[in-house]
Amino acid sequence: MVGGGPGAMIGAAHRHAMWLDNQYVLAAGIFGRDRHASAAFAEGLGVARVYDDYREMAEREAAREDGVDVVAVVTPNDSHFEIARAFLESGISVVCEKPLTNDSDTAAELVAIAQSNGVILAVPHIYSAYPMVRHAARMVRDGDLGRIRFVAAEHASGWASAEVEQWRMDPERGGVATAVADVGTHAFHLLRYITGLEATRISAELTTLVRGRPVFDNATMRLTLSNGAPATLWATMAATGQEHGLRIRVFGDDASLQWRHEDPQHLIVRDPSGGSTTLAHGMTTLSEDAARLTRVALGHPEGFIEAFGNFYSDLADLLRGGQARELSIPTGVDGLIGVQFVEATVASHSNDAAWVDASFGT
Amino acid sequence: MVGGGPGAMIGAAHRHAMWLDNQYVLAAGIFGRDRHASAAFAEGLGVARVYDDYREMAEREAAREDGVDVVAVVTPNDSHFEIARAFLESGISVVCEKPLTNDSDTAAELVAIAQSNGVILAVPHIYSAYPMVRHAARMVRDGDLGRIRFVAAEHASGWASAEVEQWRMDPERGGVATAVADVGTHAFHLLRYITGLEATRISAELTTLVRGRPVFDNATMRLTLSNGAPATLWATMAATGQEHGLRIRVFGDDASLQWRHEDPQHLIVRDPSGGSTTLAHGMTTLSEDAARLTRVALGHPEGFIEAFGNFYSDLADLLRGGQARELSIPTGVDGLIGVQFVEATVASHSNDAAWVDASFGT
Amino acid sequence: MVGGGPGAMIGAAHRHAMWLDNQYVLAAGIFGRDRHASAAFAEGLGVARVYDDYREMAEREAAREDGVDVVAVVTPNDSHFEIARAFLESGISVVCEKPLTNDSDTAAELVAIAQSNGVILAVPHIYSAYPMVRHAARMVRDGDLGRIRFVAAEHASGWASAEVEQWRMDPERGGVATAVADVGTHAFHLLRYITGLEATRISAELTTLVRGRPVFDNATMRLTLSNGAPATLWATMAATGQEHGLRIRVFGDDASLQWRHEDPQHLIVRDPSGGSTTLAHGMTTLSEDAARLTRVALGHPEGFIEAFGNFYSDLADLLRGGQARELSIPTGVDGLIGVQFVEATVASHSNDAAWVDASFGT
Amino acid sequence: MVGGGPGAMIGAAHRHAMWLDNQYVLAAGIFGRDRHASAAFAEGLGVARVYDDYREMAEREAAREDGVDVVAVVTPNDSHFEIARAFLESGISVVCEKPLTNDSDTAAELVAIAQSNGVILAVPHIYSAYPMVRHAARMVRDGDLGRIRFVAAEHASGWASAEVEQWRMDPERGGVATAVADVGTHAFHLLRYITGLEATRISAELTTLVRGRPVFDNATMRLTLSNGAPATLWATMAATGQEHGLRIRVFGDDASLQWRHEDPQHLIVRDPSGGSTTLAHGMTTLSEDAARLTRVALGHPEGFIEAFGNFYSDLADLLRGGQARELSIPTGVDGLIGVQFVEATVASHSNDAAWVDASFGT
Repeated sequence: MVGGGPGAMIGAAHRHAMWLDNQYVLAAGIFGRDRHASAAFAEGLGVARVYDDYREMAEREAAREDGVDVVAVVTPNDSHFEIARAFLESGISVVCEKPLTNDSDTAAELVAIAQSNGVILAVPHIYSAYPMVRHAARMVRDGDLGRIRFVAAEHASGWASAEVEQWRMDPERGGVATAVADVGTHAFHLLRYITGLEATRISAELTTLVRGRPVFDNATMRLTLSNGAPATLWATMAATGQEHGLRIRVFGDDASLQWRHEDPQHLIVRDPSGGSTTLAHGMTTLSEDAARLTRVALGHPEGFIEAFGNFYSDLADLLRGGQARELSIPTGVDGLIGVQFVEATVASHSNDAAWVDASFGT
Repeated sequence: MVGGGPGAMIGAAHRHAMWLDNQYVLAAGIFGRDRHASAAFAEGLGVARVYDDYREMAEREAAREDGVDVVAVVTPNDSHFEIARAFLESGISVVCEKPLTNDSDTAAELVAIAQSNGVILAVPHIYSAYPMVRHAARMVRDGDLGRIRFVAAEHASGWASAEVEQWRMDPERGGVATAVADVGTHAFHLLRYITGLEATRISAELTTLVRGRPVFDNATMRLTLSNGAPATLWATMAATGQEHGLRIRVFGDDASLQWRHEDPQHLIVRDPSGGSTTLAHGMTTLSEDAARLTRVALGHPEGFIEAFGNFYSDLADLLRGGQARELSIPTGVDGLIGVQFVEATVASHSNDAAWVDASFGT
Repeated sequence: MVGGGPGAMIGAAHRHAMWLDNQYVLAAGIFGRDRHASAAFAEGLGVARVYDDYREMAEREAAREDGVDVVAVVTPNDSHFEIARAFLESGISVVCEKPLTNDSDTAAELVAIAQSNGVILAVPHIYSAYPMVRHAARMVRDGDLGRIRFVAAEHASGWASAEVEQWRMDPERGGVATAVADVGTHAFHLLRYITGLEATRISAELTTLVRGRPVFDNATMRLTLSNGAPATLWATMAATGQEHGLRIRVFGDDASLQWRHEDPQHLIVRDPSGGSTTLAHGMTTLSEDAARLTRVALGHPEGFIEAFGNFYSDLADLLRGGQARELSIPTGVDGLIGVQFVEATVASHSNDAAWVDASFGT
Repeated sequence: MVGGGPGAMIGAAHRHAMWLDNQYVLAAGIFGRDRHASAAFAEGLGVARVYDDYREMAEREAAREDGVDVVAVVTPNDSHFEIARAFLESGISVVCEKPLTNDSDTAAELVAIAQSNGVILAVPHIYSAYPMVRHAARMVRDGDLGRIRFVAAEHASGWASAEVEQWRMDPERGGVATAVADVGTHAFHLLRYITGLEATRISAELTTLVRGRPVFDNATMRLTLSNGAPATLWATMAATGQEHGLRIRVFGDDASLQWRHEDPQHLIVRDPSGGSTTLAHGMTTLSEDAARLTRVALGHPEGFIEAFGNFYSDLADLLRGGQARELSIPTGVDGLIGVQFVEATVASHSNDAAWVDASFGT
């Protein structure tokens, strides 16, 4: 692991997820720029090998017989590219936090390096690893909703509804389109994952809800999807009072479905009569895509760390050379698309929210 | 009443609302174009005077000492103007269903006639007559939310998620922007009513979700509000499986609030900590604006007809010459703004969803 | 109407319900013991004939050709018997608030008088007039739940969670088992109405939650139902913070269902897999028992007054000599059973909550 | 670990919980009666030392310098006593599934052995390790609810609403009062944990909802609490269609609170006005008792395994000699009280649900 030192929430989430199913040993890492703090932190975690520099770590771990199989990069956005590249070039698989990098050229470069070196580059859009999201994606692929006619996605959190001091609010480090990069990419990936559709054009209005903030903390987007259906996506971290706020509603000709991260173990399916059916995590009648991710029985909620554990569990399968599943984890291309998505919203915004054509992933 | 014959839901709602509080007698009307059916229906309702023609009705009722004080116009959209004008010109107040007319010139004309004749022209955006909506509007005016920073409104119903045969789906009768005219205007009025803000520009994408439908049954809108805050508004009647689907979330610097028509007796207030408070219709601690509209005690739900009754009750106050309240019912200007709103969405749509400046109400 | 003067919530509810569907004219009444206040109040309501004494009213109304068809008795419990008897004996149908009387002998006497005089005695357990409750009762009768195996009913309101000054808290006027008489009888009727089962034995613990209160404001009951299934019923008006609190869950071998008065337009049906289906008032797929009670379309909530209106509408059918429906309104026998239920809980309580056999309705 | 072989849900939950926070190494175990299957399973888990017999395991682990600090006993109920005793007598701490044993004498013996040997005996009533349950307990202790006046607890699951083949349904192995032992004890512990009150008497009706089942799968209980307040507790695993079904409502003079295991990250607090406040896991304003158990930020649900992890984390503190907290994990006495509770319900039931005095924990 690179990054994720004391107090970093996302690094802790990665570690709990690795430990949860006893499939990973955290063997090496750099936990911040302060060498002593990093070493002390590593000792507390039982990490055997601590490094000062990621290049050195990449080199040495690649050289060891018992070197790490995969490294998690959980540093601020502007350092992702250099660090991930170092490991990928050394032949070590990488889990890199989103957005993959701050521009699509470097993101594409990481994808290319991973491919040419035959290693895995995975991007932790964790929400697609929830069993009920997998089931939703299965229902769409099985045609249970009919043609998709509209999608409304939102990740409208309140975590930064007042001023916060963080690298995310620094345009130099996290880019100017913070709302899109930080939370919008999650909603966009969720939309793509469940529907199996891509965006062909985008219109975005970027605004700043918290006065004086030097980045855009709010974004409203319109998308046209690859089947012609319209969609909306709202991303913000300044929605006063909302908890997490990731939610998606997918409307088909025959049915619609709704999933909310505040209640992740349920999936609501609505039919044209106006009735709705609530499916619950752990029901024996769910698809194998969902059922295989169940640790405890019906009625025992599994939360964010379990979903994160599903991500790492699927990754372990891939690292062991397991066969790719139709519904598995997001990889480098998904990360690249996320970066292109951020760029498209900035381009649209700078043209008064006009439509911008998209050909993401290439 | 003009319109609202057998099978017409909205006409029935008007009647129940008039009867509910025993403040109105339904004395005269035309209940459809078939003279005999209209007369038979009127007899069943105990309506004393049935007419064949609205001009005749306007003339005769105006001439009677015991003529009607107000007439409800609940016919298809394209006939609103002629009928409402006839009554207003005869000095009879009018409740006219929305959209007031099919274009803003005629809508403005109705407003002018009502004004010059000293009669009331009221538009039944009923949702703003729910006690908890009134309370929400009061909270905003009292500054409980701080500066409004964002609004997300939607009226996404599923009532026409499959093909339906109705005048509303005929572009000649209801206009082409059906989703905006039929449901979007409700959401827009709700937004204006609660926030006290107007729109200064609009961008709209109009689409058709049900294949083959000759009108736009879906509309996604962006608004800039008069205080500079951004807002979104989604209107459709083709959201498969949704019930009624009117919902609004208003985000301020200090708090946010949420109201849904599927659960109208509650108002959810969220504070920046992530906690939320649910206020219930009938609580003794609510503002007078809400409390004065309570018929039964806490815990006894009041629904759509009661809200409609509140509209008619406030109208009765005005007809009796009562003092205007700060939070009362929508009138002709609100109806005019609704028509202008529909026109603005069509203008934006025809320019690839570009921004259109708005100076509504004038 | 007898009772229901200024400030009396239940009297107002009766009146709104009568007016709602324009099937009743409030022609005569006594609105409190103060003659002048009663007359003034009646005038405000447009009531033609005001009386000072219920005996006089019964006599005179019975003598008039245009005398009232039915009278609503909404006075405190201890006066129900004398007043209802006077009207029934005069051949005037009666709607009498529950509990019908303060003891089963007098209740049985009212039932007998109504029967021998060929008039209707109806008891407004309004909750059974909600469309979704009717649909629930239909589902049980149609066997959709299989054998009923358990029922959990509760009416746990918070309206008197602090001290209140009211005749209901006076053991002389409302009896000592206030919680059972005031709210428990509603839950018990709902249980009987939906399941079609009677109680064969009861165990009750009566307690006082608000210190110093001279009546029992809390009751926990166990029932054995006529098919042998166990059931529980909790009744209180001192459940701090609860709104209305009427809720029922019925468990069958094949499915279960849940209805709550705080969300009366929905009925939740659960199947053994753990999935649940939510049915909504206004869906076109509901049973005729529910569908015939719909005034407005899917998504437009109808509340307590509409349910009350359904009660009065069904009553109007019966007064006009309409054929009795399988699922209609509660009558005198239901009122008698309610009184017997109250007595049984007192008997059980006085024997340390031991089982008491029940043969209600006879 | 003893028990918890392939397919055993509860054993798996223990292991995930141990791993989650990287504080435990699973070093030794017996995973079922089949020696080869147990060994193969242990190898898959990376368990170093596998035994055939728990006595041998106790002896040898006690003798090793690197022997286990604690053993989890997750076998069927009737074997708990012998196994737990062996380890406790060897000076090894024990986590023993509930019910601790099948009778209170043996349960008391385990408590005594643990005490005299200075080791820990912990009982995994996991629900009391949820942050929002801890916060609820804190609120009660801080007097936020005022005097507790009533408690309604239930654990009404649907997991065995049809016939199941399991040792739990064998009266020889799990006892006759299955509903009480299997789920009722969880609800009872939750009640004790949150309120800090004990039961002074109990009345129980035990019934069988699934026809032909040889044990009682349903139990309705009345309790009198140590402050004199009444309470009800409903326990079943045959509530058709319910998911998990653990829920508690605690009513005080000044406020009430509600927690449901299906939505464990929220706690609803109601005040006498009828308004309610929803507190969410991760809010920065929660008590330290809840806040110290947060792994990820507001809006990221933590579920059953995280709660289980909290249990093991608190246990690790105790094993390391940490100071006992006011709100920590249940120990042997709580397990003993659970067994006494089961016995009391059987005693009451055999006397027609009469009251039985309780002096639990002694």
